[in-house]
Amino acid sequence: MQGLMQDWPLLTTRFLTHADINHPTREIVSMLPEKAEKLGQFRYTNADMAQRARQCGQALEKLGVKLGDRIGTLAWNSHRHVEIWYAASGVGGVTHTLNPRLFPEQLIYIMNHAEDKLLFLDITFVPLIEKLAEHLNSIEHFVIMVGADDMPETSLPNVLCYEDLLAGEDGSYEWPELDENAASGLCYTSGTTGNPKGVLYSHRSNYLHTMGALSGDTLGITSKTTILPVVPMFHANAWGIPYATAGSGAKLVLNGPHHEPDILHDLIIQEQVTVTAAVPTIWMGMLQYLESTGKDMGKLKVVTIGGAACPRSMIDTFQRKYGVRVNHAWGMTETSPLGTIGSENAYIENFSEEEKLDIQCKQGRSIIGAEICIKDDDGNIIPRDGETSGRLMIRGPWVAKTYFKQDEENMLDTEGWFDTGDVACIGPSGYMHITDRAKDVIKSGGEWISSIDLENAAVSHPNVTEAAVIGVYHPKWDERPMMAVTVADGASITTEEMHAHLTGQVAKWWLPDDVVIVDEIPHTATGKISKKDLREQFTEYKLPTY
Amino acid sequence: MQGLMQDWPLLTTRFLTHADINHPTREIVSMLPEKAEKLGQFRYTNADMAQRARQCGQALEKLGVKLGDRIGTLAWNSHRHVEIWYAASGVGGVTHTLNPRLFPEQLIYIMNHAEDKLLFLDITFVPLIEKLAEHLNSIEHFVIMVGADDMPETSLPNVLCYEDLLAGEDGSYEWPELDENAASGLCYTSGTTGNPKGVLYSHRSNYLHTMGALSGDTLGITSKTTILPVVPMFHANAWGIPYATAGSGAKLVLNGPHHEPDILHDLIIQEQVTVTAAVPTIWMGMLQYLESTGKDMGKLKVVTIGGAACPRSMIDTFQRKYGVRVNHAWGMTETSPLGTIGSENAYIENFSEEEKLDIQCKQGRSIIGAEICIKDDDGNIIPRDGETSGRLMIRGPWVAKTYFKQDEENMLDTEGWFDTGDVACIGPSGYMHITDRAKDVIKSGGEWISSIDLENAAVSHPNVTEAAVIGVYHPKWDERPMMAVTVADGASITTEEMHAHLTGQVAKWWLPDDVVIVDEIPHTATGKISKKDLREQFTEYKLPTY
Repeated sequence: MQGLMQDWPLLTTRFLTHADINHPTREIVSMLPEKAEKLGQFRYTNADMAQRARQCGQALEKLGVKLGDRIGTLAWNSHRHVEIWYAASGVGGVTHTLNPRLFPEQLIYIMNHAEDKLLFLDITFVPLIEKLAEHLNSIEHFVIMVGADDMPETSLPNVLCYEDLLAGEDGSYEWPELDENAASGLCYTSGTTGNPKGVLYSHRSNYLHTMGALSGDTLGITSKTTILPVVPMFHANAWGIPYATAGSGAKLVLNGPHHEPDILHDLIIQEQVTVTAAVPTIWMGMLQYLESTGKDMGKLKVVTIGGAACPRSMIDTFQRKYGVRVNHAWGMTETSPLGTIGSENAYIENFSEEEKLDIQCKQGRSIIGAEICIKDDDGNIIPRDGETSGRLMIRGPWVAKTYFKQDEENMLDTEGWFDTGDVACIGPSGYMHITDRAKDVIKSGGEWISSIDLENAAVSHPNVTEAAVIGVYHPKWDERPMMAVTVADGASITTEEMHAHLTGQVAKWWLPDDVVIVDEIPHTATGKISKKDLREQFTEYKLPTY
Repeated sequence: MQGLMQDWPLLTTRFLTHADINHPTREIVSMLPEKAEKLGQFRYTNADMAQRARQCGQALEKLGVKLGDRIGTLAWNSHRHVEIWYAASGVGGVTHTLNPRLFPEQLIYIMNHAEDKLLFLDITFVPLIEKLAEHLNSIEHFVIMVGADDMPETSLPNVLCYEDLLAGEDGSYEWPELDENAASGLCYTSGTTGNPKGVLYSHRSNYLHTMGALSGDTLGITSKTTILPVVPMFHANAWGIPYATAGSGAKLVLNGPHHEPDILHDLIIQEQVTVTAAVPTIWMGMLQYLESTGKDMGKLKVVTIGGAACPRSMIDTFQRKYGVRVNHAWGMTETSPLGTIGSENAYIENFSEEEKLDIQCKQGRSIIGAEICIKDDDGNIIPRDGETSGRLMIRGPWVAKTYFKQDEENMLDTEGWFDTGDVACIGPSGYMHITDRAKDVIKSGGEWISSIDLENAAVSHPNVTEAAVIGVYHPKWDERPMMAVTVADGASITTEEMHAHLTGQVAKWWLPDDVVIVDEIPHTATGKISKKDLREQFTEYKLPTY
């Protein structure tokens, strides 16, 4: 027997319409890639954005966009990017956000694999795309996201001007009632092996992910929030924040191409930002800026940090000195991305400050709708004892079941769990702690050593600016840890000094057999340490303990 | 093209499982109908509840419950009621909560119409059901929700003991993966005309309603919340609170059959309740209790009030004197029930305290997922000017499309809106204000007079304890308002005194043509003023201005 409730498909445009009708005067402030403009000069309202997104939707239909067509975007966080983001999926297409930090060959591969029909790009990326254009097989039009006055000279074929496109439409358009399981977004993961793989979001998955993001414990968003998602929209949908702001009536602040601490700080102060989200390197820079200028963080209350782990000392300083709560979040492109959040639950409410900081260094607890568990190699769920680690698994309505154009490949286990490739444990408090990537874990004498724990402990040494640990062949132990570090200007560190520093922080048998100072530690396009590249650099290397 | 995200049906058991796995030690405290026990003596954890709900599920299957079977409950808010609530829908049945305050004939009609297969009842209601049993056509077993020691002597046939049922099962049970559109709950509205009508909730509608309830601006629930839903589970699912507590890890406090202010107050203080929800009469009683004892509200921070409008003075006192934020919520059985909430949005953030109080007297603003609008008699949407009133319409995934066993009757308009039967207006701030029930509005000379506004203004007179206004035939104006009032012991009021009191609060032409003191104002089973009964009492009445 079916229930007798309304059929109301869960669509991404629901959020935009909610904002338009219920919070029409709430502001969106955007910095623009094409102008060295005064800070926060461009601002308009939810009603304006909804109107322009409808105009954009009309323009897309005129350009022949049909159900399921992929629309690429290569753009910073800006009001125009949010407009096209809503419009492309709103008319039934698929918003495909591209990461400009990828290698050109990857961008070519991705756009051809996705068969993008249109590409919307910021003026910043015109030179990049001019170089690749001859290899792009499916793109019918390149739409440069500027007004007519700012249109550049370009060798690109079939170029259109974004503002001209919109000016040709009146916005009297109703978003179609699509199937909620229709594809709405596409984002490729830049895996460290093989070609990038596309995650194909549905309207339903984006809607439910947003409801998870809006729940009281997740990002801390209400109608009164002003939020600056420093995390880019091409990085797993800016963690769903542009949907969450529209769904809550929060004010959205967009930093365009600007990631410098002084500009971000000015924006936070001027716009009275209360919540923000970014990767740790951004906040590392911000902290240095604050310390050197003596400035404070204004009305900022919550920072959500994801993409990598934030050092304990940084969490502590932000909270004690600047009054900003730091929450780790963990997720992946395959998980839309929010899976866990580090906000305080009742279990730890009466813990000491130090115990709470320990918990905050973990990756957080399950958001309702994102089930997590840890499985051993035989596929059994490991108890939440806070010690036993294993494969981190996740399932739920905003987790991928397979990749784009790999429909036939089921990548879930028999119980529907997706293997994240992370090694983690979960404590009785519910907080999950990632100890490694499965492929980076060091297997020494049959036991596991966490490269991530070693790295986190190493960077708290004042001489060390970054650390990366890999397993290297050892005839007796099979693998032993080798630590590569970069050091501060003029500083140095020996293996013995590092051992002294690590002792007490990690088990004795975890101490790296060697510490090697390098000029630079290799990174992936999304700013993570590339252990694959590091291993390649050290192919010929032998441990001193060999 | 379909998205490639996981198939994860939205089921009510998701919340219970989330609580079991992520917040296993969080408490549920329950008062029991069968015992004059010490306050809060019964307490257990989410893990216990999940275990017992699974045992209950096993027992239901043994009793032959099949997909779609209706399971009646006639019970106060207690841990057992929540267990059966989850178990009945979890195994694929339909949890049918019955309101014990209905007239016996209505209860008989409803149970037969629903074809309840089982009835779970508190010991309190055994005498009531014994009297009705011979008229109940479908019930195979009566399950009394007590332990064996407390089982009463009864004339009921096929009686089972709840705790014995559970004791026979081990709880090693997995909730089936049902169709999310399957019926999960049933609740009848006690309309003022005709037979009661059943609203048939689906798993999906309950899931999405809960996510709406959990969003940061709605009920103010996080993992650290302790919530006492004084509102009964038979009153529109206790506004979804038992799902929301499980979904967030909040602590749930259940008051059993106790609604006396001193017991509720003791419970709030002892269990450190931070959030609660009830109808205004409960809070009226609480306020008198506080004023007469000089006590405070402990850690209570937010009260959500629904079912009727809360007087401005009461809102003001709770906030200023007791530090408890008062939010109106509006909804109906047909809307699961949450439609709007009175929490502060950014639009009114900088209003003066008085202006904010004005807004708080309204019924609140749209929760994301519950679309509202006001339509005129021609079906056109009226602008949100805060003045023009019309029919309040609502649509969304947790709004009914028709009633149980009326599948063929579409009760929505062509755009999918459900007519609430309320007359309201919406302001530019987004806050909605109900001015009347459509059938109670007084049409005087072609213009509308709000009976509710008149009543609210009248009760602020110190001599008046309750007021009800109805339209009475008038040869010149068609209808004119007549006000019936009850007065405080020994007090009195004349029409002239009421006019003096109302002047300045309402338009001059709204002043009632007569004020009549009555012993009692009739109420419906859910505690609302019954204008139908009042009109019947005054059938022969003629206005002095006739």
